Amino acid sequence: MRKKRVYLDYAAATPLDRRVAKSMRPFESEKFANPASVHNEGIVARRVVAQARTEVARLLNVRSEEIIFTGGGTEADNLAITGIVEKAREKGIAAPHIITTNIEHPAILETCRRVTKWGGSVTFVPVQASGLVDPKHIAAALKPETVLVSVQLVNSEIGIIQPLRAIATVIAEYKATHGDTLSAFSELGYPYFHTDASQAPNYLDISFQKYGVDLMTLDGVKIYGPKGIGVLAIKRQVAIAPIIVGGGQERGMRAGTENVPAIVGFAAALTRTVQLREKETERLRGLQKYFIQNLKENFPRNVSIINDDCQKSVPNNVTICVRNGQEAELLVVRLDALGIACSAGSACTNLSTATYSYVIEALETASLSVLNDCKSSSIRFSFGRGTTRRDLDLTLIALRSIIK
Amino acid sequence: MRKKRVYLDYAAATPLDRRVAKSMRPFESEKFANPASVHNEGIVARRVVAQARTEVARLLNVRSEEIIFTGGGTEADNLAITGIVEKAREKGIAAPHIITTNIEHPAILETCRRVTKWGGSVTFVPVQASGLVDPKHIAAALKPETVLVSVQLVNSEIGIIQPLRAIATVIAEYKATHGDTLSAFSELGYPYFHTDASQAPNYLDISFQKYGVDLMTLDGVKIYGPKGIGVLAIKRQVAIAPIIVGGGQERGMRAGTENVPAIVGFAAALTRTVQLREKETERLRGLQKYFIQNLKENFPRNVSIINDDCQKSVPNNVTICVRNGQEAELLVVRLDALGIACSAGSACTNLSTATYSYVIEALETASLSVLNDCKSSSIRFSFGRGTTRRDLDLTLIALRSIIK
Repeated sequence: MRKKRVYLDYAAATPLDRRVAKSMRPFESEKFANPASVHNEGIVARRVVAQARTEVARLLNVRSEEIIFTGGGTEADNLAITGIVEKAREKGIAAPHIITTNIEHPAILETCRRVTKWGGSVTFVPVQASGLVDPKHIAAALKPETVLVSVQLVNSEIGIIQPLRAIATVIAEYKATHGDTLSAFSELGYPYFHTDASQAPNYLDISFQKYGVDLMTLDGVKIYGPKGIGVLAIKRQVAIAPIIVGGGQERGMRAGTENVPAIVGFAAALTRTVQLREKETERLRGLQKYFIQNLKENFPRNVSIINDDCQKSVPNNVTICVRNGQEAELLVVRLDALGIACSAGSACTNLSTATYSYVIEALETASLSVLNDCKSSSIRFSFGRGTTRRDLDLTLIALRSIIK
Repeated sequence: MRKKRVYLDYAAATPLDRRVAKSMRPFESEKFANPASVHNEGIVARRVVAQARTEVARLLNVRSEEIIFTGGGTEADNLAITGIVEKAREKGIAAPHIITTNIEHPAILETCRRVTKWGGSVTFVPVQASGLVDPKHIAAALKPETVLVSVQLVNSEIGIIQPLRAIATVIAEYKATHGDTLSAFSELGYPYFHTDASQAPNYLDISFQKYGVDLMTLDGVKIYGPKGIGVLAIKRQVAIAPIIVGGGQERGMRAGTENVPAIVGFAAALTRTVQLREKETERLRGLQKYFIQNLKENFPRNVSIINDDCQKSVPNNVTICVRNGQEAELLVVRLDALGIACSAGSACTNLSTATYSYVIEALETASLSVLNDCKSSSIRFSFGRGTTRRDLDLTLIALRSIIK
């Protein structure tokens, strides 16, 4: 008999919820028309897209015309950053400035770096040893050319929850005190505040008002929804240019035939995960505590918990540093051989670089620790709807056989 | 009992083939992992993406690393044009020049227009009265700064098949004769030749060698595949920059978690439509002739066939001009009320502008006709796998009740 595998990589990808899948089916082979078509079949498609848009907007507490469906979270991040910078340059700001942190997702970091090729500039604010960004450091980086501040709500690697509300406050204070000395472009409302909230909806409220943001990225693949679909919610006062043109879809902000089944699925997935949020948060918080406690008892010396303070992170993430001289990549491979699927860093960095984690490195740099050995030996365990206490017990057994 | 509707808008959207849908299912809720993950689940996902890539590459007769999966045909067109222009500017070409025709899809036309905002320039070569572009006109437009020629293989509105091979020849001749007088950038191989072949695979060979192209766009939604997935095939000598960055997927050319089920579905759909191609082409050619003949017999005076010469267009497209003073939009709505789903122009232009067709307008301008009345009174009927002779008979009956 084939042994059951333990999947603890829900932060990288979630399975499509079967109820969500069912909601998508009618729009694949039957009601398949192009929502841009004039005929009845097109009207049906247009209507379900409008319904899905309204549903998503309600959950974010924005207007439905403020929801832009994209091909995924990465595209949404690209649209937010490139789109705002492009528009700012059109408006005559030759060197737009962006503020972000040094532990953002690669979709943010690389897009920001690219902006510097186009005459823009970026401040990568270092986070503290806890992984949290200090709003005072954001405040210190603000300047008249700043068009955008982008801070991820929940970090992809370590699950830490950033103080978005406090950051929104320092941005608002800057606008209030510098309004008259700001550039001629202050009537455009710069700087805007964007958050990549892809890792958040399963566990946190995602209403715009709670965080005071102007733009928010969401991703279907993280919320038990379909792949290839994301959202960029954009408050209507935000001046932004599209990155994909030709066809006028999504109010001209994202051209291309609407992916009707995926849009329907995204709305269904977001609705369902919001319904399950409280119960799942409580359940996973229990598993998180259980796992951390057992890790501490089992490995008092050679394992440390990166996100030890549960209150500062989402309940589905336990990231550990293994101090036995083995590289994270090897640890993940050995755990995999024992039936445990977990991750070294976030999946999106595996392909490009990483035998080490730039996120953990940022934490170590901030901590002034002399050890600095966790950046290449940290493992992320991320839980989800399928995770049970038994999964964690099996993981602890596997870890015991690897970590002497 | 609800009357069966007649859907004659397959050029706007095709239903997802049920066998294709079945091939996608395992990768939705079961084998759902992120292909960038190191663990076994990730390896499985990576392997099926690689298999799909090889399958698509084989059908295009290119290498598998020359296949880039995108979020759809529009994104692929944007990547081709913006990506080549962006890279050319990085290489020091301050004002890259593009050649295209005046009847391309909006994804090409709008992307080209945007290039002019960035210091580039575009020649929109007018087509002839037949809808065909004259390769000599392309040749005449070529100049040392030309980095790209983009001509759609099959026009979205009127189904006309452009002489790509002859265009490739004039480009090759230009390179051969002007090689030493071309700019310092001629070692990059400019100008490249791109085709949007989205409307082609159901009826035409799509191998690169047949047409002599360097880049080709394909779209899942036109080949009975999933929505939200497209391909840009790029010969490896082509210098191109990504438009979506962050994560390194698709050889750095298109960031974002791979949409595994859609990628699998795209490959399955392309394989299947190539298998069915010959039989379907013959079947639809028969229906096309039948429909045209009956239109001529029924409406000798007030209907003319835009794409009368079947040999010059794909077999699933009959576009007519109705000369009874009614606007196309109204005709489509009236046919819709009688159970016939068809289109005025292509779906992608409906949202933005059109009570008239810029494609038909281009044909009328070229014909020097004094009438010039078809651009606002043309209707496209596009057939597909579900189309029967009975569908066309019902359409003829409906047309008779509308056109006096």
